[in-house]
Amino acid sequence: MSEQLWQRILGELEQLVLIDPHTHINPHAAASTTLADILGYHYYTELAHASGMDRERIEQDGLEPKERVGRLVEQLGHIDNTVQYSWLLEMCREFFDFEDDAITVDNWESLYDDSAARMADSNWEDQVLSQSGLEQVYLTNDFDDPLTGFDTARYVPCLRTDDLVFHLASASTRERLSAASGVEVVDAGSIVSALGRLFDHFRAHGARACAISLPPDFEPQPVSQASFEPVLQSILTGRELNQDESRTASAFMFWQLTQLCADQRLPFDLMIGVNRKVYPQGVYQGQDLFDQRTSLIQFRHLFNAFPQVTFPVSVLAQTSNQELVSYSWIFPNVVTNGHWWYSNVPAYIELDCRSRLQAVPKTKQIGYYSDMYKLEFALPKFRMYRRILAGVLTHDFVLGACWSERRAIELGELVLRGNVERIFGTS
Amino acid sequence: MSEQLWQRILGELEQLVLIDPHTHINPHAAASTTLADILGYHYYTELAHASGMDRERIEQDGLEPKERVGRLVEQLGHIDNTVQYSWLLEMCREFFDFEDDAITVDNWESLYDDSAARMADSNWEDQVLSQSGLEQVYLTNDFDDPLTGFDTARYVPCLRTDDLVFHLASASTRERLSAASGVEVVDAGSIVSALGRLFDHFRAHGARACAISLPPDFEPQPVSQASFEPVLQSILTGRELNQDESRTASAFMFWQLTQLCADQRLPFDLMIGVNRKVYPQGVYQGQDLFDQRTSLIQFRHLFNAFPQVTFPVSVLAQTSNQELVSYSWIFPNVVTNGHWWYSNVPAYIELDCRSRLQAVPKTKQIGYYSDMYKLEFALPKFRMYRRILAGVLTHDFVLGACWSERRAIELGELVLRGNVERIFGTS
Amino acid sequence: MSEQLWQRILGELEQLVLIDPHTHINPHAAASTTLADILGYHYYTELAHASGMDRERIEQDGLEPKERVGRLVEQLGHIDNTVQYSWLLEMCREFFDFEDDAITVDNWESLYDDSAARMADSNWEDQVLSQSGLEQVYLTNDFDDPLTGFDTARYVPCLRTDDLVFHLASASTRERLSAASGVEVVDAGSIVSALGRLFDHFRAHGARACAISLPPDFEPQPVSQASFEPVLQSILTGRELNQDESRTASAFMFWQLTQLCADQRLPFDLMIGVNRKVYPQGVYQGQDLFDQRTSLIQFRHLFNAFPQVTFPVSVLAQTSNQELVSYSWIFPNVVTNGHWWYSNVPAYIELDCRSRLQAVPKTKQIGYYSDMYKLEFALPKFRMYRRILAGVLTHDFVLGACWSERRAIELGELVLRGNVERIFGTS
Repeated sequence: MSEQLWQRILGELEQLVLIDPHTHINPHAAASTTLADILGYHYYTELAHASGMDRERIEQDGLEPKERVGRLVEQLGHIDNTVQYSWLLEMCREFFDFEDDAITVDNWESLYDDSAARMADSNWEDQVLSQSGLEQVYLTNDFDDPLTGFDTARYVPCLRTDDLVFHLASASTRERLSAASGVEVVDAGSIVSALGRLFDHFRAHGARACAISLPPDFEPQPVSQASFEPVLQSILTGRELNQDESRTASAFMFWQLTQLCADQRLPFDLMIGVNRKVYPQGVYQGQDLFDQRTSLIQFRHLFNAFPQVTFPVSVLAQTSNQELVSYSWIFPNVVTNGHWWYSNVPAYIELDCRSRLQAVPKTKQIGYYSDMYKLEFALPKFRMYRRILAGVLTHDFVLGACWSERRAIELGELVLRGNVERIFGTS
Repeated sequence: MSEQLWQRILGELEQLVLIDPHTHINPHAAASTTLADILGYHYYTELAHASGMDRERIEQDGLEPKERVGRLVEQLGHIDNTVQYSWLLEMCREFFDFEDDAITVDNWESLYDDSAARMADSNWEDQVLSQSGLEQVYLTNDFDDPLTGFDTARYVPCLRTDDLVFHLASASTRERLSAASGVEVVDAGSIVSALGRLFDHFRAHGARACAISLPPDFEPQPVSQASFEPVLQSILTGRELNQDESRTASAFMFWQLTQLCADQRLPFDLMIGVNRKVYPQGVYQGQDLFDQRTSLIQFRHLFNAFPQVTFPVSVLAQTSNQELVSYSWIFPNVVTNGHWWYSNVPAYIELDCRSRLQAVPKTKQIGYYSDMYKLEFALPKFRMYRRILAGVLTHDFVLGACWSERRAIELGELVLRGNVERIFGTS
Repeated sequence: MSEQLWQRILGELEQLVLIDPHTHINPHAAASTTLADILGYHYYTELAHASGMDRERIEQDGLEPKERVGRLVEQLGHIDNTVQYSWLLEMCREFFDFEDDAITVDNWESLYDDSAARMADSNWEDQVLSQSGLEQVYLTNDFDDPLTGFDTARYVPCLRTDDLVFHLASASTRERLSAASGVEVVDAGSIVSALGRLFDHFRAHGARACAISLPPDFEPQPVSQASFEPVLQSILTGRELNQDESRTASAFMFWQLTQLCADQRLPFDLMIGVNRKVYPQGVYQGQDLFDQRTSLIQFRHLFNAFPQVTFPVSVLAQTSNQELVSYSWIFPNVVTNGHWWYSNVPAYIELDCRSRLQAVPKTKQIGYYSDMYKLEFALPKFRMYRRILAGVLTHDFVLGACWSERRAIELGELVLRGNVERIFGTS
């Protein structure tokens, strides 16, 4: 009975057409062209490497896509237990009519060729979106992205700000900032002006959010222009900053960006907890990890100082989820956002989804985003989430709290879609 | 089958008459007089605020109770997924025969009036206690509470010591201490005498525990009277203390209180992990949060120094539960105590309840307390816990470990009631 | 249906003959001779003590085994809810045909006598191994163990290195090192030579791993011989080291041992997170606890510096499990290893097992080890794990991901046995 109930609820949730509020899609090449685009996703290359394949073998220069796929397939037998592999299999089944139990050295080549043929369809991108039930995809754009040449109603710009906050000391960041804004960076005031121009540009192209990923020890603090000025001047002379100065620069830039989010009424997606390049010899994008010793208490000044800015917060460490639940339960401007990266594992999603639905106002929860680099991933990732969500709705709400099926489904729809529309202001 | 088994076990646990070992009940006004007393609980005001209602609208001066309820009801549609809301609905159904699916702008007024009429019964307080299966309620008394004018056999005094430990530098705390103890606070020795008088007073009125809530970075340490004396003298001259001095004062006071618990054979309830006023613009009692980076290792000196004092420990961060399990498994004087505040969410209670029942001696577990401000809350909160407890007994013990139903029920009764009696010495 | 499926999968897993990759077995007295050997396990003495029995009563000098058991049995009624007690009952049922529901003051004596008679069988050790389905047991040998007088094909030596890393300042450690290696410890170079001899000795006797337990704040760092030399000279003059010097000594020794693991191709078992003697008045081996505030980020330099060394990692804090999953998913040389001590509780094993099977390459997971001191414990401990593992395979893989039963069973066999063989190189 509970199995059938779950199936019915899942069926309803599967009908819902979605907005994906955080991805790394390149709108000029949104869908895959070969299986190499799919298997090249860092989730597969890093698992292949971690399970024993040399990085050089995976990332060899000049490797043809088909050869790369052939090599990675050799390693799949080591990782076919993982949920990441289950996404791969599901994509092949749903999009390419793959029917075998596993992708192996014996069957991959025909799969490769069949799928390449399908992806060569002129409207492949539309097919994927349609089959995935996806009508809008949020991007993560570099701050100097011209934002032209694509349909911003379908692919919604979002301003990624990591470089501005953490790499201002790099000449290339400053040059890009000057070029993008038309403001020469000579002092703190010119930085503020330049940032304002970026926001104007993004706003003019329909941007719906500002976004940043932050290391576990980041603690936002207000920094006056006067305190930042000498640090900036040191940067401009090319002197290497000490740790305190780097923190001052990052804190200043971050606070300015938040002020612009306030001024321009943009939500600020905070993705909290990643340490970059912990394993520098790892594959591309497979080098980052985390330190669970972090707390949202580090953001108390920020949350208090900007009540008018909505902060959709993602946490990398699963141990941070209860803090996220609690801060969202107290602060009007803190919203739970998806299940990020190392927390995007069913055992953790389930626990986190349950605790959020049990204790955070339902209008403050963005259920899921795919974080995808290629469109094909939305289908299996959202399906994974929908299955878990349907399970929580079944057990905690219909069976556990005597809710009607209809009401449970509406709660699911709200966290899957309704809140995305309202929080990011697309409706 | 397992559903029916669960129902039977739950049915037995529901029969049990309880002692609630930690509440914030005012014994002079224990039950509610209108729905405003219930909806005024910070769990509702903070969720209403966090989901979008202005604090001013909730806490406006001079607001009539009925108007306040009307306003809060407007916001309930945002939080009707939460377990907190489910308590509200359950109270209305159980106590006021409310039969609708939800409390809305259309039906709240008659609910308000009906419930007010019921609460006006002269024996409403007795009705609530009887219907809730509650025979004794522990209080959290200010240290200068006269403890008179109520039945201390029903409402058991407990000495709350936060002000003494953390606000001794405030003149009003010292004045209250002098007034309550009859000892003028002039030096460390007089503080020690005054504290002794407080304990005598509480003991004479049947107090069963001393209690305190502690911030995540608190680390108890012995402080000699000689080291404390200059700090106290600074306080008495009105000089502001630096952080080290504040810590010395808090540590001294805390250690003295523990010594008195030892001398007077009182358990010391430690409620570990709350940061006060993280969101100072929040509603009343909706401003506190936490930092998960805390450890029971901070209490090693305390637990070793006072083997004769029982410490019922509550942890605010769910991530602290495994430490609590482990410290209770090793230290004879550490006891697990309930599921506190931000950990009082079914998804977390279930995990914490399971791990405790699997690894902590059964005689060292206080299953639950309501933490309530008004009597009506005991029923839904304890029922939530009993449902979870019955589930764990069903799955982990009867089905998983082949226990008889009877034996599982007895384990449930022990953590729900038997241990409360033995640990706090009321039987 | 899922119940029957689980039973079938469990039945298959129960057939598997195992290698236990981490124990504290004394190969010269591997099996128990009386029930006192079993009830003397610190899991029982510490729970008995924590639930109210005086240490002196448990550890009284000259106590006869039978009297000790009689005393501990008095306390079992306080801890019969625990999973540790369930192991005891299961051992008595499986090995000694005990049929009562509980071990009590009324029935223990006949159980004691019956079991003593059984254990007196000349081939008791073989019987236990055979009945437990165990063919190889890894040891934890002191660095100066002669490794003679036992069958190293059955009892596999592993080099425990805690003393070398953390107690080099103790004269007895250095004397033991000199005696075992035949190298007089006079300078850093002689230490390096001596360590090399130890490894040669262990390797010659079939050692399969090096192992160490580490406190939560330990952070491996390379230390040059030149930096270590003055610290060693201070040690040799008998001067007490300050904290920095102690850290230098520990870091140097640890790094040297890891280098030897690299040179001699031995995996290095890291058991991360224990604080020793937190409760010094506790029973023997019942004094250690932990601080959950630890992170695998502390091991970044180590994992990067030694890509050729496999590190099977155990974490004491359950909150560290997600880091372990993530680090194993990224670093080729990090492998998940069992469920250690305070994390060896079903509620935690289940969550940890699920997340590992969902996100770590299947070839990088060592499912379980018993950590036992006496052979009889392998049966109930591994059975506990097999039950949980069968549950995860049933729900997450067969039912949740449509795997065939056969494939799910093979995954179970891999983490239970296949990976142990491959990772430690015994096959």
